[in-house]
Amino acid sequence: MPKVSDSHRADRRRQILDGARRAFARHGYEGATVARLEQEVGLSRGAIFNYFPNKWSIFYGLALEDYDRVGRLWLDEEYGSVLRHMASEDPDWIGVYLELIRKIGTQPELREQWVQRNPDLNDELMERVAELQRRGELRDDLEPGELLAFLGLILDGIAVRMSAGFPVETEPLLKLVSSAIAPQ
Amino acid sequence: MPKVSDSHRADRRRQILDGARRAFARHGYEGATVARLEQEVGLSRGAIFNYFPNKWSIFYGLALEDYDRVGRLWLDEEYGSVLRHMASEDPDWIGVYLELIRKIGTQPELREQWVQRNPDLNDELMERVAELQRRGELRDDLEPGELLAFLGLILDGIAVRMSAGFPVETEPLLKLVSSAIAPQ
Repeated sequence: MPKVSDSHRADRRRQILDGARRAFARHGYEGATVARLEQEVGLSRGAIFNYFPNKWSIFYGLALEDYDRVGRLWLDEEYGSVLRHMASEDPDWIGVYLELIRKIGTQPELREQWVQRNPDLNDELMERVAELQRRGELRDDLEPGELLAFLGLILDGIAVRMSAGFPVETEPLLKLVSSAIAPQ
Repeated sequence: MPKVSDSHRADRRRQILDGARRAFARHGYEGATVARLEQEVGLSRGAIFNYFPNKWSIFYGLALEDYDRVGRLWLDEEYGSVLRHMASEDPDWIGVYLELIRKIGTQPELREQWVQRNPDLNDELMERVAELQRRGELRDDLEPGELLAFLGLILDGIAVRMSAGFPVETEPLLKLVSSAIAPQ
């Protein structure tokens, strides 16, 4: 009965990702030992690492989901929704990203995997920006990739401020970003 | 001869800060053990901790110097100089900030100390922004503090991208930031 088995696997995978997200947020990435992962997930290390080869791949699975959620929000709604979503994230979870950023920066194979975490979504976002430029809704004196890099950089900046425990006021920020990318 | 003694103390302090900066950049903050600090600084732990009560206070001393340098650059030149200076920083050193950001975020007394690391410089920057608003060189529909928070957030975003090993193209970024803060 492959259908049952597939659904069982999907449930287990979900259980591991959800538990690991809690463990990472609570203890940090380095602090989330195998014992703590077992505790939050409610499965043995044998079962967990049957689904994911290592701790990094669990984090990567979570990052894939986050990126997909943020990217879809952007495509389906607008950048303001993305900003507000970011500002409502758990600072402990955001801190996990910042804990791993240097690891990504110093290990080329991780960085490559990171950049390629969803090429189709990247293409869709790039195409959306290009389309808005053609329609005169975004400035066209910069490349779509330059505008996207800027909008991503804003999200990174929000992540730092939230992790440092500072409030992020999204409305003035959104005014500033809108002026930055508007047709000049 | 208090003058000689003062100058000796200043030299030692300089030696500790310079060595610690190298140790933090090379090994990360957590990885910079007391033994590694001794090695990079060239002084015994007794001597080092005679000048600074703990590792955090050494990092804080370095952060004070960085903040002062960046703030002065901003006041004496312009934001473009700050951006270019940031982009030329050592990603390993920038990574130390990101490693500590969650610590700052979760420990209120550190956060307070962090915010207050140079109140006079904060005031000067705020006054500069207000003056540029009065002269019509910056948008005045937002508070000076909101504009400063945005410019700081851009620097934080640059820090993340550099730490993750991505290039930061300062010229398109500067165009975008200039449009964001220009009179509307």
